[in-house]
Amino acid sequence: MSTPWTLTDAQRAVDEWISQWDDGYWPALANLARLTEEVGELARELNLHHGPKPPKTGADAPDPDRIADEIGDVLFVLITLANSLDVDLDQALRAALEKIGARDAQRFTPKS
Amino acid sequence: MSTPWTLTDAQRAVDEWISQWDDGYWPALANLARLTEEVGELARELNLHHGPKPPKTGADAPDPDRIADEIGDVLFVLITLANSLDVDLDQALRAALEKIGARDAQRFTPKS
Amino acid sequence: MSTPWTLTDAQRAVDEWISQWDDGYWPALANLARLTEEVGELARELNLHHGPKPPKTGADAPDPDRIADEIGDVLFVLITLANSLDVDLDQALRAALEKIGARDAQRFTPKS
Amino acid sequence: MSTPWTLTDAQRAVDEWISQWDDGYWPALANLARLTEEVGELARELNLHHGPKPPKTGADAPDPDRIADEIGDVLFVLITLANSLDVDLDQALRAALEKIGARDAQRFTPKS
Repeated sequence: MSTPWTLTDAQRAVDEWISQWDDGYWPALANLARLTEEVGELARELNLHHGPKPPKTGADAPDPDRIADEIGDVLFVLITLANSLDVDLDQALRAALEKIGARDAQRFTPKS
Repeated sequence: MSTPWTLTDAQRAVDEWISQWDDGYWPALANLARLTEEVGELARELNLHHGPKPPKTGADAPDPDRIADEIGDVLFVLITLANSLDVDLDQALRAALEKIGARDAQRFTPKS
Repeated sequence: MSTPWTLTDAQRAVDEWISQWDDGYWPALANLARLTEEVGELARELNLHHGPKPPKTGADAPDPDRIADEIGDVLFVLITLANSLDVDLDQALRAALEKIGARDAQRFTPKS
Repeated sequence: MSTPWTLTDAQRAVDEWISQWDDGYWPALANLARLTEEVGELARELNLHHGPKPPKTGADAPDPDRIADEIGDVLFVLITLANSLDVDLDQALRAALEKIGARDAQRFTPKS
């Protein structure tokens, strides 16, 4: 059983992984292209499971584990991008929660 | 100074935020649409800063903080999607690192 | 009433528009980032109209014309990208119809 | 040699293709998910050809025809989405050219 990662641990683990290679971090627009690619693969899985397309047998048959895999890939690439730009994810997420919290307060119906 | 969040803490914080509202989690394809929207906003900022488009003054002038904001928004929506599908991000990220590690080993040049 | 554009006319109209500027076509990954941005704006409009988010009044209130606008923007950027890479859209679309036709034949139920 | 398609012909050809199937058009958010998937596949090809990732031999080796294929797929799905929402692409593209023309006039350097 491994110790749960903080967001900072996760950024460090990805950095260690990248540091193995001579290539280092890609430029921002290449990382973005990779993020777009991984979001596309997630879209495909979500559409297979939660969309109108009839399930198929064989390689394309819905498989819940593949959605988790694709979400993991998107997170990995997002962390790579954040690392390459020196963005602190813990801070960025807290800021998002505050900002979205304020912005969406008008869009949603509070529990009564 | 706040205690750093684990990925699990981050999932819980988003869940608490969502739980305030009667609406609850959106269906998967609506969360995906929102993820696409947020990745698009990140793309815009990255292109302004790291692309060929000449910087402008005024509201569109490059601002490093806006990239961090947009990365935070993408992470927030990704966590929302993961929560709605009961995906454990700590586990999904570790799996991605292992899988991508194995797959990319051929694409990169190890340090000598 | 204007003469309907062929796909080739559309590519030429975009080329004439781009040719006004000294900047010329952007590199491929910058055009892709712009495509991602425009698909994100389309996602936002589609989610407002066809998603679970309750309609709002004011600037975000659903407006069918904005979906058409966003589709037009995505098409414009796609043509820009195609032009910059010397891709013939008429040919590419016919190829897609043939390929998708063959591939999806198993996924759909023919009318009886 | 086939007659060049107008944008309206292209919309009709896709409609005829869809009309073969009992399933008809998908809901908007499922079409959007498919658009996201296809843009992701295009991103992958563009990154292989125009990004920093070293070319590989084998199935992933850069191949210019695959970019054209992926652009064709994105166009096909965009037309599907437009058809399902009764959007006229000829009109939407002309509107985009006008709007972007006005908006970008400040961002670019006119030829002298």
